[in-house]
Amino acid sequence: MNLPNNTIARICKVFGYLNSLEDTNFISSKELALAIGTTGHTVRKDISILGITGYTRKGYDVNALKNELGSKLNLNKKRKACIVGLGRLGTALLDYEKFQKDGFEIVAGFDNSINKLERIKTDIKVSADIYMKDIIKENSIELGIITTPSKVAQEVADKLIDAGVKGILNFSPIKIVVSEHIIYQEMDFTNSLRFIAAQLED
Amino acid sequence: MNLPNNTIARICKVFGYLNSLEDTNFISSKELALAIGTTGHTVRKDISILGITGYTRKGYDVNALKNELGSKLNLNKKRKACIVGLGRLGTALLDYEKFQKDGFEIVAGFDNSINKLERIKTDIKVSADIYMKDIIKENSIELGIITTPSKVAQEVADKLIDAGVKGILNFSPIKIVVSEHIIYQEMDFTNSLRFIAAQLED
Repeated sequence: MNLPNNTIARICKVFGYLNSLEDTNFISSKELALAIGTTGHTVRKDISILGITGYTRKGYDVNALKNELGSKLNLNKKRKACIVGLGRLGTALLDYEKFQKDGFEIVAGFDNSINKLERIKTDIKVSADIYMKDIIKENSIELGIITTPSKVAQEVADKLIDAGVKGILNFSPIKIVVSEHIIYQEMDFTNSLRFIAAQLED
Repeated sequence: MNLPNNTIARICKVFGYLNSLEDTNFISSKELALAIGTTGHTVRKDISILGITGYTRKGYDVNALKNELGSKLNLNKKRKACIVGLGRLGTALLDYEKFQKDGFEIVAGFDNSINKLERIKTDIKVSADIYMKDIIKENSIELGIITTPSKVAQEVADKLIDAGVKGILNFSPIKIVVSEHIIYQEMDFTNSLRFIAAQLED
């Protein structure tokens, strides 16, 4: 399905919000809108673009909507990911519980420092960079998370893609260039602070 | 200036990109669009909404554009921030170089575990939670970054706001409720992976 990026982004947020709900059977488009920061109209439009009906007076049926959104956007499928760069941020992400809960399984971590690898305390298998390609192929890892210093981020991305990864989430503060068939997303912490600062009164 | 959130978000990205450039005097709207993932038309429209002219055949003058965007959106002002929750993610952010480079100064870190505070290696002053209010007021800290476990995130946010913080960046995987005058933004790592997964072919 060829959807605009903004629609995909909003639906992912709606899906994540539905996932986080406990003991809620029905939810209105207005509540969903509030949770993800948009309008009820936009939520209803996004959902109907996907061909999902079923908005009743009580609202959407939470479980039905979650399943339908998940199946339309392939979000019900479990995905395997690896993390490259096991400094403090990388090791923090190794054990980030919410990945697991939301269907993303971190199956491997990589670093080029043997010293660092020996000191890391985690249940996840951590290995030297040189084994990256083999481990990614063996485990059919689809997603690569980059938490290395900027200066090696591009090189690491190239290696991940060469090993067969289809999507990259980049935490290093540099723009990585990837070919068109790779899905690329970056987390820019500074930009989030900037977005807040831009809205401050003085 | 009352701009739509999407416009603010894009301009923040443009500003960040301009900031990262070295030895570039002029830049086209197309290059900017490519860097932030939108169209040249949208970039030109966003910039002109701010009343900024000066698009020549060579493109925008990088320094002039950076200064103008910065002054229109108050991004040239230095902002002080603190981090609450000094686990691995929090300590990783304490020394995240790019904050400093981009005008955000992390001036304090807080945690409720004295043990943890004693073991942290950083140049930034770290203190127990009970000193939060005093230190935030004394240093005129405007931004609070939350990296605590979910179950205390709301309580921490309430304390930060009570101490005078105007903006909150929340890394904990839970939605925090803040009053309307507080600028709130959350970093959801899982959602970024989900956004990638939703675009994978199979």
